[in-house]
Amino acid sequence: MTARPEPPHLDVLGIGNAIVDVVAQVPEAFLTRHAMHKGAMALIDAATAERLYAALPAAQESSGGSAANTCAVAAALGARVGFLGRVADDQLGRVFRHDIAAAGVHFPTPALIGGAPTARCLIAVTEDGQRTMNTFLGACVAFGPDEVDEALVGAAAVTYLEGYLFDPPAAQAAFRRAAAVAHAAGREVALTLSDSFCVDRHRDAFRDLVANHVDILFANEAEICALYERTDFAAAVAHARLDIPLAVLTRSEAGSVILRGATTVEVAAVPAHLVDTTGAGDAYAAGFLAAYTAGRSLAACGRLGSIAAAEAISHLGARPQRPLDGELAALVN
Amino acid sequence: MTARPEPPHLDVLGIGNAIVDVVAQVPEAFLTRHAMHKGAMALIDAATAERLYAALPAAQESSGGSAANTCAVAAALGARVGFLGRVADDQLGRVFRHDIAAAGVHFPTPALIGGAPTARCLIAVTEDGQRTMNTFLGACVAFGPDEVDEALVGAAAVTYLEGYLFDPPAAQAAFRRAAAVAHAAGREVALTLSDSFCVDRHRDAFRDLVANHVDILFANEAEICALYERTDFAAAVAHARLDIPLAVLTRSEAGSVILRGATTVEVAAVPAHLVDTTGAGDAYAAGFLAAYTAGRSLAACGRLGSIAAAEAISHLGARPQRPLDGELAALVN
Repeated sequence: MTARPEPPHLDVLGIGNAIVDVVAQVPEAFLTRHAMHKGAMALIDAATAERLYAALPAAQESSGGSAANTCAVAAALGARVGFLGRVADDQLGRVFRHDIAAAGVHFPTPALIGGAPTARCLIAVTEDGQRTMNTFLGACVAFGPDEVDEALVGAAAVTYLEGYLFDPPAAQAAFRRAAAVAHAAGREVALTLSDSFCVDRHRDAFRDLVANHVDILFANEAEICALYERTDFAAAVAHARLDIPLAVLTRSEAGSVILRGATTVEVAAVPAHLVDTTGAGDAYAAGFLAAYTAGRSLAACGRLGSIAAAEAISHLGARPQRPLDGELAALVN
Repeated sequence: MTARPEPPHLDVLGIGNAIVDVVAQVPEAFLTRHAMHKGAMALIDAATAERLYAALPAAQESSGGSAANTCAVAAALGARVGFLGRVADDQLGRVFRHDIAAAGVHFPTPALIGGAPTARCLIAVTEDGQRTMNTFLGACVAFGPDEVDEALVGAAAVTYLEGYLFDPPAAQAAFRRAAAVAHAAGREVALTLSDSFCVDRHRDAFRDLVANHVDILFANEAEICALYERTDFAAAVAHARLDIPLAVLTRSEAGSVILRGATTVEVAAVPAHLVDTTGAGDAYAAGFLAAYTAGRSLAACGRLGSIAAAEAISHLGARPQRPLDGELAALVN
């Protein structure tokens, strides 16, 4: 007889890059001049970060990081949330730590002493609301298997990993350890593919993980097509349905599609005045997981994802700017 | 025969505290719990800054400082602008330096090495859009007469000083030096009273400076009443008219009153959707000075002030979020 797992103490444990966002509104020409792919995330070194920052207009700083954003939104929605990620012992690291704690997220990872500074992401927001990101990983490269808090992973209903975590060299091993610990404790593992360029950088590792270690996959159209090297969304959907127990595919204003075995649930987007798409996918995953770990229907999970995404795109920056704590209780199914 | 001064190379040179703002939206109860006077600025030490920051919700960081905000807005309006103020050689200091340079403001003051960190202002914004500020002065206390760049002061049509600069101990001497240099070069000196509590802290020094060294005074109702210890705005106006060559008195949604000798110009406020009053007075002064140094009428100066203030209150934070470069040319008188 197999022992049944203890009730989880956390609904969601995020593991990801701990990043401070530097957000500035730019003209389209800025992207061209600096050879940026609109909507994508590029990795940059310290020298490039200095050069791009110098070229950037006056900016606002706020805590970011894809999985960390998801954690902050999920906590705002009432879920019990933890986060693992690496900041440095510097001013921006203290900003990150303050904000995630203020969002109600448990964040036990100690700061890196004497290494690279806290990671930052330079986010150029164009007039169409699209964000284009350039990330200096800084202290995130010091996140490895030793930073995976096994007790916390074992205590979380869902451990949620961001695809961007595949970029720091030691983090793939951390991911595999977290997935093994979660499954050994009878928990679920979720992954977001993060970015189609990130999928291109790590396709084989992603394919192996998705097929063998992931229970819930979040991806947008470009990412799922990149994963399976398809140009056609329908073909990628067919592949995902066979490959993953639960696939959650977002399509911007066309809403989202949720696949579980033979079941398909289509969810409409919630209309919003688009200011900045930063954090839209992160917020969708937060809404989905907050409803999922509360035992709600797939339709309700998608609906809460859409509500959270609509809040995220209606202002500059990725963290919530209005209370979301009544949204889960207000869901109808 | 007196030599006529050279044409100025700068329209406005601001001298003030170089501060990074930490802005968070709070419930009214937050102000009560932490014994804050709504709408005022209080000085706090490093330990109190730590304690209040820990209590603050998730925040956004952006460059601030009263005169620095005025400089950024004046530059956005097309004026040639410089700023003198002290940051530390740390991450927040680099954020401040980046943003003021990106705003087009010349900022030559070197960073403080090995002293206090860059100043920060914790700004609690309540639902009514009012901001309540707690400032840790940090590196600003190292701003003194040696930091007054005499060539720059001599080259600026107007040297603009913030009243908050009276709080750091060495800055009053810097102010007097700047005023003397400006007047010796045939330039004008402007002062903003900043805050009625700041006036209460330094009333005698302010009274002496306003009567003997200031050409243009900016104040709101509470500040001008505090300066002359009057409870009645009309009585304070009568006193100001006798005391100051040019007094510019702002009254929030009731607009502004400009006094020059026997002349009185009343200016209406520009309607705006109020989100956050942070920087409204700073932006008004910027609009006024950008038009004033362009040789426009007092009515046009007040109008441009009102336009800039309306932009400032329509979003979170004190720095402009939309282009303002066409506003001066669009003025009708």
